[in-house]
Amino acid sequence: MSPGFAGPRFVGDVPAVAALDWGTTRLRAWLIDGGGKVLAERRGDDGLITAREKGFSRVLEGHLAAMGAPETLPVIICGMAGSRQGWLEAPYVTVPAPIGAILAGAARIPGESRDIRIVPGLAQRLADAPDVMRGEETQLAGAGLPAKGREIVCMPGTHSKWVLVKDGAVAGFGTWPTGELFSVLAAHSILRHSLGEHPEPVDPENLFFRRWCDAALNEGGDVTAKLFSIRAAGLLQDMKADDAAACLSGLLIGGEIASARRRQAAGAISVVLIASGALAALYRQALGLAGLGVRTVDADEAVRVGLVEAARENGMIARTGVAR
Amino acid sequence: MSPGFAGPRFVGDVPAVAALDWGTTRLRAWLIDGGGKVLAERRGDDGLITAREKGFSRVLEGHLAAMGAPETLPVIICGMAGSRQGWLEAPYVTVPAPIGAILAGAARIPGESRDIRIVPGLAQRLADAPDVMRGEETQLAGAGLPAKGREIVCMPGTHSKWVLVKDGAVAGFGTWPTGELFSVLAAHSILRHSLGEHPEPVDPENLFFRRWCDAALNEGGDVTAKLFSIRAAGLLQDMKADDAAACLSGLLIGGEIASARRRQAAGAISVVLIASGALAALYRQALGLAGLGVRTVDADEAVRVGLVEAARENGMIARTGVAR
Repeated sequence: MSPGFAGPRFVGDVPAVAALDWGTTRLRAWLIDGGGKVLAERRGDDGLITAREKGFSRVLEGHLAAMGAPETLPVIICGMAGSRQGWLEAPYVTVPAPIGAILAGAARIPGESRDIRIVPGLAQRLADAPDVMRGEETQLAGAGLPAKGREIVCMPGTHSKWVLVKDGAVAGFGTWPTGELFSVLAAHSILRHSLGEHPEPVDPENLFFRRWCDAALNEGGDVTAKLFSIRAAGLLQDMKADDAAACLSGLLIGGEIASARRRQAAGAISVVLIASGALAALYRQALGLAGLGVRTVDADEAVRVGLVEAARENGMIARTGVAR
Repeated sequence: MSPGFAGPRFVGDVPAVAALDWGTTRLRAWLIDGGGKVLAERRGDDGLITAREKGFSRVLEGHLAAMGAPETLPVIICGMAGSRQGWLEAPYVTVPAPIGAILAGAARIPGESRDIRIVPGLAQRLADAPDVMRGEETQLAGAGLPAKGREIVCMPGTHSKWVLVKDGAVAGFGTWPTGELFSVLAAHSILRHSLGEHPEPVDPENLFFRRWCDAALNEGGDVTAKLFSIRAAGLLQDMKADDAAACLSGLLIGGEIASARRRQAAGAISVVLIASGALAALYRQALGLAGLGVRTVDADEAVRVGLVEAARENGMIARTGVAR
C-alpha cells in the first residue's frame, strides 16, 4: 500500500462526512466539511480485491483513523465496493433515470455503528444490450453537466463507458472493455512477444499511436483483423516494443471511438471526456483525430464532487452552504 | 503426453519419408511410403513449447523410434517448429506466390545425420497489412484446390487465416486471432466470472451461439462493444456459464466472418473451410448463418497430404506412383 496523506488544511474545520471512491484495485478517501470542502485526502491500493481478504470494515476504519475522522462520522461510498463481489450489493437503478435520483438511493451497510452508505450502480435492462456501471454514475453526477440538452459522455478506463445524457438523466450507455483488452492482450496473448514484459505508457504524440488510431477510426470498430498485424510487424518490420504498444493502444482506442460513434453517439459533434492524467491525454488525441470537439472534466475531481452530492442527496450533509 | 500409435499397416511396406505437423503445443507425425501412403501415425503434446526445453532433435527421434523409422529416413516438417522460436527459422516466402513453389523451398536443419527439412512460412509484406503464417500453407497445398479460378479459404483456429487463392497461388491473406481471443478472455478477463473455470466446448446448435453470431455478422467486425454485455447478462439476466461461452464464441466467430468478408472476401458467395472436428462444426454453422456456401476440407487430412506434396517438391520421395 502506498497511501498519500494530507491532514486537515484548516485547524478547527469539522468533517461532516467521509467520501470514498472504492474500486476493484484502488480506493481514494476524503474528509469533507458541511460546505463540501475537502479537509483531508488519502489513497490506497486496498481496493475490492484486497478488502475482500482483509475485511471491508477494517480497511475503511484504518483509512478513517489515519485521517483523524471522528468515530461517528458518516461515510458515503461509490464504486465496485457496492458490487456483488463487494461489501454489500447496492441495488442497481434502471436507466433511463435522472442522475440526482440515482445518488439518493444509497444502500446502508447493516451492523455498523457508523452510518455507511453505498451509491447504487446503473443497469440498462435491454434484452439485446444489457449493461451495468458502478462508480461512473457518481462521476457523471459530479461532472457539472447542464440540466438541459443532450450530451455524449466518454469515460475511458478498464471498462470505458459511453453515456447518453438527456436533460440531466442517463438515457442509455454502453461499455467498451478497452483498458482490459490492452492489459490481457499485452500480458497473455502472442502480442506479449511484441510489446515486451513491461510496456511503457503510450505517448499520445507517438506516430504509431496516431496512425493506428486514425486507421481504426475508419473501420467502424473492427479491430480484431488488425491485432495480429502488430505481431507480424515485429517479425517483418522489426517494430520496437514501445511502438507496438502504441499500435495496440491506437487500434483499441480508435476502435472504441468508431464503435461508440456507430452505436451510442451517432451524429455527435462533441463529447464530454471524463478522465485524468495520461489516459485523458490519449483520448483527447484520439477524439481530436475523430474530428470530435472535446470538453475534458477531471475524473478524480468529478467523483469527489459527485460523492459530496450523494452525501447531500442522502441527507448526510446539509443542502445549504455549498462550496465546490 | 498422450501419443497414439498405429504400426505399419502392411508388413513389408517401406517408409520413404517421415512427415511432421509441428505446432506450438502439439505435433503429429506420419511414416509415408514412396507412393504417399500412410504407414504409421503418432500424436504428441510436445509441441514447440515443450521441445524448446527437451530439445527438438531428441523429441523428434523419440517419435521416430516409437514408429520404427529407419535411422536414415528423411523428415519433412511444417508449422511453428520453423519459426524464430522454433528449431530453425525457415525463411518466409513472400506472397503472392504459387503454392507449389512455397513447398519447394524447405530449409534443411544443419548438423543432423538425417535429411530434415522445414517448409517455409508465408509473409505478406504490405506496409499497412503485414502478416505471416506457418503450417497453414501446407494445409492449403493439401486441400485439393483447383489449379484455376478464385477461392476464398477460411482456416479457423488460434489465429484464423482467410486466404485469397487465385489460379493456385496465394494472392493475399489476413489473420483473425479468434481462438486466442476466446482463450485469453475466458481465462484472464472479467468474463471468466461469466464463463466459469472450464468452459465446455460450445454446441453449434446452442441458441445463444446462433443468435450472437447472427447479430455479429451484421456489425462488420465490431465485437468489442458487445463483450461486456456477456458479463452484464450474467448479472442482470442470470445467464448460465455454458450460454455465456456460446455468446462469446458466436460473437467472435460472427465478428471474424463479418470482418473477413469486408476485407478479404468481398463478394464471395462460398468459401473453402479447412477445419476438423468441433471447430469445423461451429464454423459451418456460422458460415451458413452468413449465407455463404461451404466446402469443408478436413484440416488433419489436408496437412498430411500437403506434407507428402512438400516431400515430393523437395525431392525426398519420387514424383511417380502417387497414391493419396
